[in-house]
Amino acid sequence: MIFKTFWRKKEKLKDKKSVIESKTDIFKYRSALEMRFTDLDMMGHVNNAVYFTYMEIGRTKYWQQAIQWDWKKTGVVIGQASINYLKPILLGDKISIYVRTSRIGNTSFDLEYIIIKEKNGEEIVCSKGKTVCVVYDYESKSPVQIPLKERNKMIEFEQL
Amino acid sequence: MIFKTFWRKKEKLKDKKSVIESKTDIFKYRSALEMRFTDLDMMGHVNNAVYFTYMEIGRTKYWQQAIQWDWKKTGVVIGQASINYLKPILLGDKISIYVRTSRIGNTSFDLEYIIIKEKNGEEIVCSKGKTVCVVYDYESKSPVQIPLKERNKMIEFEQL
Amino acid sequence: MIFKTFWRKKEKLKDKKSVIESKTDIFKYRSALEMRFTDLDMMGHVNNAVYFTYMEIGRTKYWQQAIQWDWKKTGVVIGQASINYLKPILLGDKISIYVRTSRIGNTSFDLEYIIIKEKNGEEIVCSKGKTVCVVYDYESKSPVQIPLKERNKMIEFEQL
Amino acid sequence: MIFKTFWRKKEKLKDKKSVIESKTDIFKYRSALEMRFTDLDMMGHVNNAVYFTYMEIGRTKYWQQAIQWDWKKTGVVIGQASINYLKPILLGDKISIYVRTSRIGNTSFDLEYIIIKEKNGEEIVCSKGKTVCVVYDYESKSPVQIPLKERNKMIEFEQL
Repeated sequence: MIFKTFWRKKEKLKDKKSVIESKTDIFKYRSALEMRFTDLDMMGHVNNAVYFTYMEIGRTKYWQQAIQWDWKKTGVVIGQASINYLKPILLGDKISIYVRTSRIGNTSFDLEYIIIKEKNGEEIVCSKGKTVCVVYDYESKSPVQIPLKERNKMIEFEQL
Repeated sequence: MIFKTFWRKKEKLKDKKSVIESKTDIFKYRSALEMRFTDLDMMGHVNNAVYFTYMEIGRTKYWQQAIQWDWKKTGVVIGQASINYLKPILLGDKISIYVRTSRIGNTSFDLEYIIIKEKNGEEIVCSKGKTVCVVYDYESKSPVQIPLKERNKMIEFEQL
Repeated sequence: MIFKTFWRKKEKLKDKKSVIESKTDIFKYRSALEMRFTDLDMMGHVNNAVYFTYMEIGRTKYWQQAIQWDWKKTGVVIGQASINYLKPILLGDKISIYVRTSRIGNTSFDLEYIIIKEKNGEEIVCSKGKTVCVVYDYESKSPVQIPLKERNKMIEFEQL
Repeated sequence: MIFKTFWRKKEKLKDKKSVIESKTDIFKYRSALEMRFTDLDMMGHVNNAVYFTYMEIGRTKYWQQAIQWDWKKTGVVIGQASINYLKPILLGDKISIYVRTSRIGNTSFDLEYIIIKEKNGEEIVCSKGKTVCVVYDYESKSPVQIPLKERNKMIEFEQL
């Protein structure tokens, strides 16, 4: 993970609050999430499985808007997924998702996600997640290399 | 709607309770439904949209087990759907769905559904629904005649 | 259903196209719907049960934005729901929902919904639905009268 | 992770196949999963987020049947969740989930899950997952100690 400037990095490490801020600060893509009433379970918060749908919504938009990945053409399957639940999401919360490519391999790459809610002008981190994405050829049913155009786009967009 | 025997019909009409029982009595197919925690919304009952998933589960099994309809081969799309919500379904309720073909047309047919929960050995009707099912050719993107084999199977199974 | 002006009504009845247009024209509330990849089933179109989630999203926003109904305070349960499926919704379709109160009773009222997709600047009607909404007291577990403030708001907004 | 007997452990390590088998062999709880048509996305396999619903179904039953945990009384929230997707789940696949408690802490414990499909009498591992479960008091909104009765039950059932 590369901070955009050295100055910024120093700034971030000054106190606890800055460190937390830095977590979303390295993300270049953010999109608002539209909560549905049905996302909430009877405990009154967004059900744990729905966060993975939120991450799917996030990466679909990220690929579309930031990377112009035609993932219906060049397939991508999820190899691994993980999440840390930090704060519950409640009805009426104004939520957004940050998405970034954090690693680019040969046939796979990693995406990181932070879901936040806004309260009194501040961002509260609700969850931090990660997926390992595998470029996949549905014909041969096997992983294939990341297409060059999309690879370059990822490097360029994320300044990796 | 045809009662299986005249005797049974008379029996059923004796009192209010019998009439309600008769509603499920004309059904020849019943299947247990497996509720998921995530089917419940924050009001603590099964969300209204999930009933249509329950009806989908019901007809999928009905076609598979009673009619042997290969609906992946000969497509069926839903033209209309309706439901009366009568009693809420709560966590822990033991629920089942009744399914029957109530009308057979040329390119379409109707299915009726009753979702019940069991309590103290009695069946409590939670909802009554109906879907108009249209036999559909995905190639030509238009309705087609009900295949003869499946039509005969429906008539035979339902004694229509 | 009341047309806003007699002139408009005459206009609408001139030809088939106008009649179809009039269907959304009597609606005063419209909201964009955000499709999720997971709304689509393996047939490649939005699953039939998801339309009822779309209608739930529509009425939640309609009550919030148009009627200012605090439905978490004064409960509303769905007594009946029905839909006509007219055109499939596919991945990438830009969809919206129209919502209107079409009947105001004592303890219940009706909502009507039209889901459309936009194509080449035209609106294509994908489904027409209706729900009977019952004002419900969760304490006494019985229907109650529509609160006066919300009733007046509905009449005012819909010019009923 | 403790093997039930040393002999069994030796046996398992003989070849690759045994090692894979041993993965489910240390599980003492297994439950059949009922796939829904709507679990599949347009790629024709069970959507990645649905696996977390499957794990929720698995642990709900495991707690109910094996541990007799009244999780509606003593709340449990998910702190972390992760999964490795190994084989896709397709329509018609006969699937089951294995669940076990793999760690018991003070206020939290870990559950491990394996989802398998059966084919020609063999079990094919489709995914391996894990959740960190935090015992949670909804009143004070903070983690609390694992209740003694449930702790003992977990130790006893899992022979930890």
